[in-house]
Amino acid sequence: MKTHSFMLTFLLLLGTVSGLTAQSKILENCTLNSNVLNSERKFAIYLPEGYENTDRHYPVMYLLHGMGDDQTGWVQFGEVQRIADTAIREGYASPMIIVMPDANTVQPGYFNDVKGDFNYEDFFFTELIPHVEKTYRCRAEKQYRAVAGLSMGGGGSLVYALHHPEMFCAACPLSAAVRTGLNKQSVIDRYKTKGMVVTEEEIDEWYKKHDILKLMETMPEEQKNAVRWYIDCGDDDFLYEGNSLLHIVMRKNNIPHEYRVRDGGHTWQYWREALPEVMNFVSQTFRR
Amino acid sequence: MKTHSFMLTFLLLLGTVSGLTAQSKILENCTLNSNVLNSERKFAIYLPEGYENTDRHYPVMYLLHGMGDDQTGWVQFGEVQRIADTAIREGYASPMIIVMPDANTVQPGYFNDVKGDFNYEDFFFTELIPHVEKTYRCRAEKQYRAVAGLSMGGGGSLVYALHHPEMFCAACPLSAAVRTGLNKQSVIDRYKTKGMVVTEEEIDEWYKKHDILKLMETMPEEQKNAVRWYIDCGDDDFLYEGNSLLHIVMRKNNIPHEYRVRDGGHTWQYWREALPEVMNFVSQTFRR
Amino acid sequence: MKTHSFMLTFLLLLGTVSGLTAQSKILENCTLNSNVLNSERKFAIYLPEGYENTDRHYPVMYLLHGMGDDQTGWVQFGEVQRIADTAIREGYASPMIIVMPDANTVQPGYFNDVKGDFNYEDFFFTELIPHVEKTYRCRAEKQYRAVAGLSMGGGGSLVYALHHPEMFCAACPLSAAVRTGLNKQSVIDRYKTKGMVVTEEEIDEWYKKHDILKLMETMPEEQKNAVRWYIDCGDDDFLYEGNSLLHIVMRKNNIPHEYRVRDGGHTWQYWREALPEVMNFVSQTFRR
Amino acid sequence: MKTHSFMLTFLLLLGTVSGLTAQSKILENCTLNSNVLNSERKFAIYLPEGYENTDRHYPVMYLLHGMGDDQTGWVQFGEVQRIADTAIREGYASPMIIVMPDANTVQPGYFNDVKGDFNYEDFFFTELIPHVEKTYRCRAEKQYRAVAGLSMGGGGSLVYALHHPEMFCAACPLSAAVRTGLNKQSVIDRYKTKGMVVTEEEIDEWYKKHDILKLMETMPEEQKNAVRWYIDCGDDDFLYEGNSLLHIVMRKNNIPHEYRVRDGGHTWQYWREALPEVMNFVSQTFRR
Repeated sequence: MKTHSFMLTFLLLLGTVSGLTAQSKILENCTLNSNVLNSERKFAIYLPEGYENTDRHYPVMYLLHGMGDDQTGWVQFGEVQRIADTAIREGYASPMIIVMPDANTVQPGYFNDVKGDFNYEDFFFTELIPHVEKTYRCRAEKQYRAVAGLSMGGGGSLVYALHHPEMFCAACPLSAAVRTGLNKQSVIDRYKTKGMVVTEEEIDEWYKKHDILKLMETMPEEQKNAVRWYIDCGDDDFLYEGNSLLHIVMRKNNIPHEYRVRDGGHTWQYWREALPEVMNFVSQTFRR
Repeated sequence: MKTHSFMLTFLLLLGTVSGLTAQSKILENCTLNSNVLNSERKFAIYLPEGYENTDRHYPVMYLLHGMGDDQTGWVQFGEVQRIADTAIREGYASPMIIVMPDANTVQPGYFNDVKGDFNYEDFFFTELIPHVEKTYRCRAEKQYRAVAGLSMGGGGSLVYALHHPEMFCAACPLSAAVRTGLNKQSVIDRYKTKGMVVTEEEIDEWYKKHDILKLMETMPEEQKNAVRWYIDCGDDDFLYEGNSLLHIVMRKNNIPHEYRVRDGGHTWQYWREALPEVMNFVSQTFRR
Repeated sequence: MKTHSFMLTFLLLLGTVSGLTAQSKILENCTLNSNVLNSERKFAIYLPEGYENTDRHYPVMYLLHGMGDDQTGWVQFGEVQRIADTAIREGYASPMIIVMPDANTVQPGYFNDVKGDFNYEDFFFTELIPHVEKTYRCRAEKQYRAVAGLSMGGGGSLVYALHHPEMFCAACPLSAAVRTGLNKQSVIDRYKTKGMVVTEEEIDEWYKKHDILKLMETMPEEQKNAVRWYIDCGDDDFLYEGNSLLHIVMRKNNIPHEYRVRDGGHTWQYWREALPEVMNFVSQTFRR
Repeated sequence: MKTHSFMLTFLLLLGTVSGLTAQSKILENCTLNSNVLNSERKFAIYLPEGYENTDRHYPVMYLLHGMGDDQTGWVQFGEVQRIADTAIREGYASPMIIVMPDANTVQPGYFNDVKGDFNYEDFFFTELIPHVEKTYRCRAEKQYRAVAGLSMGGGGSLVYALHHPEMFCAACPLSAAVRTGLNKQSVIDRYKTKGMVVTEEEIDEWYKKHDILKLMETMPEEQKNAVRWYIDCGDDDFLYEGNSLLHIVMRKNNIPHEYRVRDGGHTWQYWREALPEVMNFVSQTFRR
């Protein structure tokens, strides 16, 4: 009994002391209950070195995975911990929290679905961000909030920052899924499997809200400097056309942006190489 | 008995571990109650690597933010932790505590206000410094106490070291707000919003006590070597004139000082680049 | 006899010394008489380290300047000597001769003019290349011949390698002038100043032969692997559209190529940074 | 006899071959006959590595010494050869010719004297520059011509570029003699030793033409971007006041310029440390 309480004291002490080590940490199975999606959703989080032995608040980057992956994609394949640790330690990125939500759901990825029956985007803005900012020590203002992502998550980054320019200081779509057309039949078929009927008008309406090239083309003048953009897509990527056209549309419409085409395809090697630059880019805003 | 030796092993292990692990720490929401200002005031603090597993006492540098920021400015934008860690680890700065008070208050910044109704300078000297030196293991003597700051905080560093040369071994104003004139009407207007009346005579009296160029010009001979000065202001900074004149006045009046003009403006990049040199400069006194 | 042995010693000594001393060399005012252009034409040449104390034959890269410059552009602004010396010495490029012809002539730059009255392209292939390969120790085969250039010279590189895939193993257009349309009136006006009349039909005919996007789009299958392409254009370059479309057309038409978009505009800094990569790229063919 | 001619052939051959080494070269006793100054004048010249085995033309920087030195000052104390070799080899400066004229004459240094009896400035522009550009392979245009100098030569650089903005793309006065007043008696006395009388009016007239602060203050709008300025003066230099005021006047008058105050005094160590930056600065124009 005495031993037990001794041990407890020591464990607590050890906890305090070990708090001093405070290396960076990845948690890849965080959860929150979503009313919007009517299910439990997962996310992974990167807490920078020192997070646990300070009361400091940090900027946050939301980092979105691609189709077929889940919240562990950037952890396992993207090696976010090693890359972020290095970027922060060497000073080309400022210390930040990185949140990697799970969007391994159904077709529409990070978007609200056509008939409003599965609203991931609503979940993201009304549940996930508030939960993260309540649970972790975030600097909960636009200047300290960025979004980045690859492929389907690149599309997500684009649409999120286009729909909510008041939420993000910077957006970094990598190898982004920029559609240059929509296969309506696939949507109709997908809804059939849900036992639902979707009309062409509903699809057209939905597409109008998610047509990235169009949204860029018609961006109101006062929104053009609201978000800093960093766009990167390899020369061997199958998504070359949408990204090339995106660059053209943004240049023609005078929307400031950085654009890169490096050597490579739609691969994790490409995205691992992109991540330090992305972190550096968003840090330029985080630290002014 | 067995328990005892088990515990002993544990303790030794714990000692070893803790001996290895005391990284530097930032606390950005420390508070103290100020009677002078009749409110709770915040400050951030940097505790160097090893602080928590030793009983050693350290020199202290007070590091002041600029207008519009608060005690987190040097933490978030100034990246004081990474820069100080590097400076200390590489040996061009000695281990020190860095205190960053919040002066995100009203117009007069770090000074006592004209009518003595808001006396930040009094708070700083009679409450903040004693609180810090009681709470943290500081070497509480002039030789181990320095003050530095940027913009409004550069003005603060100058006035503090001019008013209290017995308190600081070194002062490092960066891009300092050195006035070359005073807009009396703005002071009158500011007091109007407080529902108070201030006379031109009161303003003149106040200005005399805070006119940096004049204070330098009339510095008594015996004070000229009391504080070591390091002054730095970028060639693109809008505060170029006051700083250039400050250099001229100090040279003409034989007040020893270092003066730098590097490439840059009124930006955090400039101040992040200045900080290693500032830490090196104050360390020359801290370690003789 | 004694003289003889003295001389021998001298010769050996000379050999040793000269063996040590053949640095790379730039000649920027070489000339040849052109019958095609009915004038003397200039070119600059880079001879790699060691050229002058060996009988070795070298691969050749033709490196074309942009509008407004002349054969000295890559020498003075492009710093070809320092960059090539470094690339070769560090091994990412193989030793090569670099030829920089002067095309500071009239509007059509490196092309034959519309009415065939000023045929720079003919000069290049029937006079310049033969002259160079006769005068300098070149490896006079396609495998050892590359073409690169910037802006107008990027357009030249493209058209030369499209018209003469049997001549070049690699082509590297930088910030290339890829037209997305033609101002016929400007051609008509230009000919008016020559005192000549040009018809719209003649212009259309000419454009068909120089329409880079069209030539890529209609490239015969068997030509698609004839030339290795390296295309690079900065994200801030005013020629972004043509280059983005070129990438799309080549991808759609399955023409293998490297494509890069780096940070920068239509500047010599951009091209100086591109040159090492260009030399590395052509060297992959030069040394298999 | 036969031996002799053999040897001659070999010597010539050796000369040719050794020409291949073409390291940089300093000549410190070049001369030209000046009609303007009615005497033989000296200058030193730096020819960059490779100058002697090419026909290339180079940009030129005129580099002026200070009072008490002569054309060998930058060679012996400034170590121009080692510093320039390094700057060019490492690529932060482009290959250039550096001309160091001798102005070790009488009081007025690089200027025309008050009564027009000793016109060094006229000599510089009408005799020295033409001689240099005829004798050495210079790119004889404003874009490729810069002027720099220290102390009295800093004053020279300022006045030359102010009087002849059409001649220099860049001017780099180091620790420049910027007067903030003129001792008329010393001019009168100096003329007395020449056996001449100078009036106060003549001195006033002369001063108006050489008053650097005034010339900056009254610079016509269209001249403000004609010359790129790099101004550098140490914080311990006795010329601190004129240089600080120069920075203020140029800022107030919107004349773009770089300004540096580094740690140091009026010493050759300071100027040796400045030279790489000066060469880098002028090279930004030389290579666009």
